[in-house]
Amino acid sequence: MSDLHIRPADAGDLPEIVAMLADDPLGATRESPDDLTPYLRALERLADDPNQYQVVAERDGRVVGTLQLTVIAGISRRGATRSVIEGVRVHADERGSGLGTRLIQWAIDESGRQGCQLVQLTSDATRTDAQRFYERLGFTASHVGFKMSLEGGS
Amino acid sequence: MSDLHIRPADAGDLPEIVAMLADDPLGATRESPDDLTPYLRALERLADDPNQYQVVAERDGRVVGTLQLTVIAGISRRGATRSVIEGVRVHADERGSGLGTRLIQWAIDESGRQGCQLVQLTSDATRTDAQRFYERLGFTASHVGFKMSLEGGS
Repeated sequence: MSDLHIRPADAGDLPEIVAMLADDPLGATRESPDDLTPYLRALERLADDPNQYQVVAERDGRVVGTLQLTVIAGISRRGATRSVIEGVRVHADERGSGLGTRLIQWAIDESGRQGCQLVQLTSDATRTDAQRFYERLGFTASHVGFKMSLEGGS
Repeated sequence: MSDLHIRPADAGDLPEIVAMLADDPLGATRESPDDLTPYLRALERLADDPNQYQVVAERDGRVVGTLQLTVIAGISRRGATRSVIEGVRVHADERGSGLGTRLIQWAIDESGRQGCQLVQLTSDATRTDAQRFYERLGFTASHVGFKMSLEGGS
């Protein structure tokens, strides 16, 4: 396979990013690939935030993967900075190619460059393959992840 | 009990915040209450970040609780903004007083004011009481939380 390039996402990548988010049993019900407006607004907000890294993996001019890395300063653990990985997606054509590993390794390396002492992420409990994947990469499934949807959010 | 006031933390609160972080089976091994320097640096960094809310709960002039709320924009879920709650601590004297509920309710309300569609947090799998607490408040334990410590972080 040809070389993979991981770079910051721009507005031109949004159709491919959103298509990957929607091409997923959970994402299919919560994305709207036909209307990119809310995604564009979100990407602009991320671009303005020095703690946010929305990246894509590109191969042969095609966007084939994405993730969001957020750097979060904090008081606990002696003022430790941590990073949070969200929205990891690999194009269906690329599954099994090692691209997921490359993306997560990029996020771990970037977290180190940003002075983080901890990298964390949550994975839906139904995604058992993803959980094995993160454990193989050296993550520990030490926590329970809680979520609450808010009504009336804008 | 007298009134409780939830407000942004300042440097003068750090001794009480760090004492609460350290007064905990997990925190005891990873905090350094005798040296506040790294905590002060972290608090300054949080104060400079408009997406960060480090708050304390004060009763009768005493700091009796704390948490960190981070607002995170994102692409997935139609450009949803989420918040993450970290470092929730209630002083030993105040446990069972409803203060934990008040703090989390503040974080949920503030998340709504900040336009978040989702509030999330992780709880160490050994903290089974905390997990029941979050479920009672309406959170769903839908995810597995993974962490990785980085060596050489600054």
